[in-house]
Amino acid sequence: MSDAYARAGVDIDAGNAAVDRYRALTAEWRHPDQIGAIGGFSGLFRLPGDASRALVGSTDGVGTKILIAAALGRYDGVGSDLVNHCVNDILVLSATPLFFLDYLAVGKLEPAMAADVVRGVQNACRAHAMALLGGETAEMPGLYRPGDFDLAGTIVGIVELAAVPQHERVVEGDAILGLPSVGLHTNGYTLARALIPADEYAQPFGEGTYGDALLAPHRSYAADVRAIQAVADVKAMAHITGGGLIDNVPRTLPAGCAAVFEQARWDVPPLMAELVQRGDLGVTERYRTLNMGIGFTVIVPFTDAGKAIAAVPSARVVGFVTPRQPDAPAVVVHPARR
Amino acid sequence: MSDAYARAGVDIDAGNAAVDRYRALTAEWRHPDQIGAIGGFSGLFRLPGDASRALVGSTDGVGTKILIAAALGRYDGVGSDLVNHCVNDILVLSATPLFFLDYLAVGKLEPAMAADVVRGVQNACRAHAMALLGGETAEMPGLYRPGDFDLAGTIVGIVELAAVPQHERVVEGDAILGLPSVGLHTNGYTLARALIPADEYAQPFGEGTYGDALLAPHRSYAADVRAIQAVADVKAMAHITGGGLIDNVPRTLPAGCAAVFEQARWDVPPLMAELVQRGDLGVTERYRTLNMGIGFTVIVPFTDAGKAIAAVPSARVVGFVTPRQPDAPAVVVHPARR
Repeated sequence: MSDAYARAGVDIDAGNAAVDRYRALTAEWRHPDQIGAIGGFSGLFRLPGDASRALVGSTDGVGTKILIAAALGRYDGVGSDLVNHCVNDILVLSATPLFFLDYLAVGKLEPAMAADVVRGVQNACRAHAMALLGGETAEMPGLYRPGDFDLAGTIVGIVELAAVPQHERVVEGDAILGLPSVGLHTNGYTLARALIPADEYAQPFGEGTYGDALLAPHRSYAADVRAIQAVADVKAMAHITGGGLIDNVPRTLPAGCAAVFEQARWDVPPLMAELVQRGDLGVTERYRTLNMGIGFTVIVPFTDAGKAIAAVPSARVVGFVTPRQPDAPAVVVHPARR
Repeated sequence: MSDAYARAGVDIDAGNAAVDRYRALTAEWRHPDQIGAIGGFSGLFRLPGDASRALVGSTDGVGTKILIAAALGRYDGVGSDLVNHCVNDILVLSATPLFFLDYLAVGKLEPAMAADVVRGVQNACRAHAMALLGGETAEMPGLYRPGDFDLAGTIVGIVELAAVPQHERVVEGDAILGLPSVGLHTNGYTLARALIPADEYAQPFGEGTYGDALLAPHRSYAADVRAIQAVADVKAMAHITGGGLIDNVPRTLPAGCAAVFEQARWDVPPLMAELVQRGDLGVTERYRTLNMGIGFTVIVPFTDAGKAIAAVPSARVVGFVTPRQPDAPAVVVHPARR
């Protein structure tokens, strides 16, 4: 097993095989108001009564970051992580959040712990002027060990169909802006847990502890993206989640285009560098398993990049769109020399 | 511990305490388009662009029924159980399904098993002309044992606000119609698993095995309810899930009214009778833990009950609305003599 995820027990090939089966199943019948083939991150459904707009739905979890939260007894962060993750997932379609529902499953229900999780959910919803419409808390002692829990959520947003980015407009020479991540966000935790054992969580790392670095929040990019859209022609966006730059960015490229990233253009957070070193992760491994410091990418015309960075100073030009040669990968990352 | 759920390790008081905390949290801020205090089963959000309609969202899981499905390797049933459960949850508001998203979490991802689950989801969505808009499959080897999984889903539907049942219209003398359940649906499984050990799943029971009875499908009541609404004035509806008749029906009664059920009016399925006997469940215990054969209740004027039963022959008048005395319970079940 040569891949970092596989070494940590997560089978990306099985995931792709499952998705292929889902596609075959859902191709058998589609609702006439379901809009396909526009974006790969979320589903669109025509707004009843208004054919110019669509509802956008997306479901996600926070992965095994929750096992670190459980080990450290710090629960509200994963609630906001979950909401911000979902906000970013529909933001790639330029959708605005409407409402959210959460699913919390526990081995033993501790009301104070559950309330901490939901407080994080509610605060992040409020920060996006989004309703927390409902949720479910399930106590399942036979499935989850005492202290363990799982957390998932569903967001519903809305978008003008004319405002959905069309990645077919991306051309050679466009700039790829990167918005910085704070930490691992909600991906790579099975690997991180394999490389950083729980008895090190309290050890100092950077300005805090390993636990602090591992629980760093999953950022929302909503404000940054709206600021960039106000000054630049945004053609495509990707939320850098499981699969990293290598698996997420291709969904924002037309056939015949590749993305070339130059890692010297941004800083890799210390936690990522530590994981790369501890796991001796190869270049492809690290950029497929971790976000490596880039949480969200935005493709704009080269001539708009300066305006975008003036509007959002933390943004960086991290790569460019180039022609893609036959049989060449859709994403290339040139690592920094060190 | 005198209560059946508590004996099985599920703490209903902790659940209520968590809900109280959620209420306090969500009362701090509400989105102006969120419509409250109409129904207790789902959340309503005003439809953008049309103030006469609302979107209805609800999230739920299938509980530890999944552990029986996992033990028997029968996966598609829980997919349709999940969808039907959610359909019924928004049906109490008279909402029509629009789209669905699922969350499947596994210890080890087996594409064939995941596809079985999603096939069940897709088929039940199609049966309701509802889009399967998306979903998430998460492989979390540190949280779930190999073979174990969890499954949750979110439904979004739509309703004319004028069509939402107003339980304030319920009066003394109204009839309570019961629609039959097939089995446990998705509630009471932690108790059932404690009373029927896994090595009995293959033993004969009724026309099949204990496993067959335990995995009997969670019914959708959408067609029955629409048929009743076409001929009767439906004032309130309850989906009989966790908490049974005792905890679910009070949400459909105005202050000053109680519901009196007469169990001789319907048949208790053999599996429920078996669980009552094995667990020596008292009357309150059995009607708070199990659906006892009634999956959905519909309150209509007494004079409409005959028309409703003519339209849906499986429906029964299972009880009546009576005045509620101070300090008396909101739900009384008179057990059948035997």
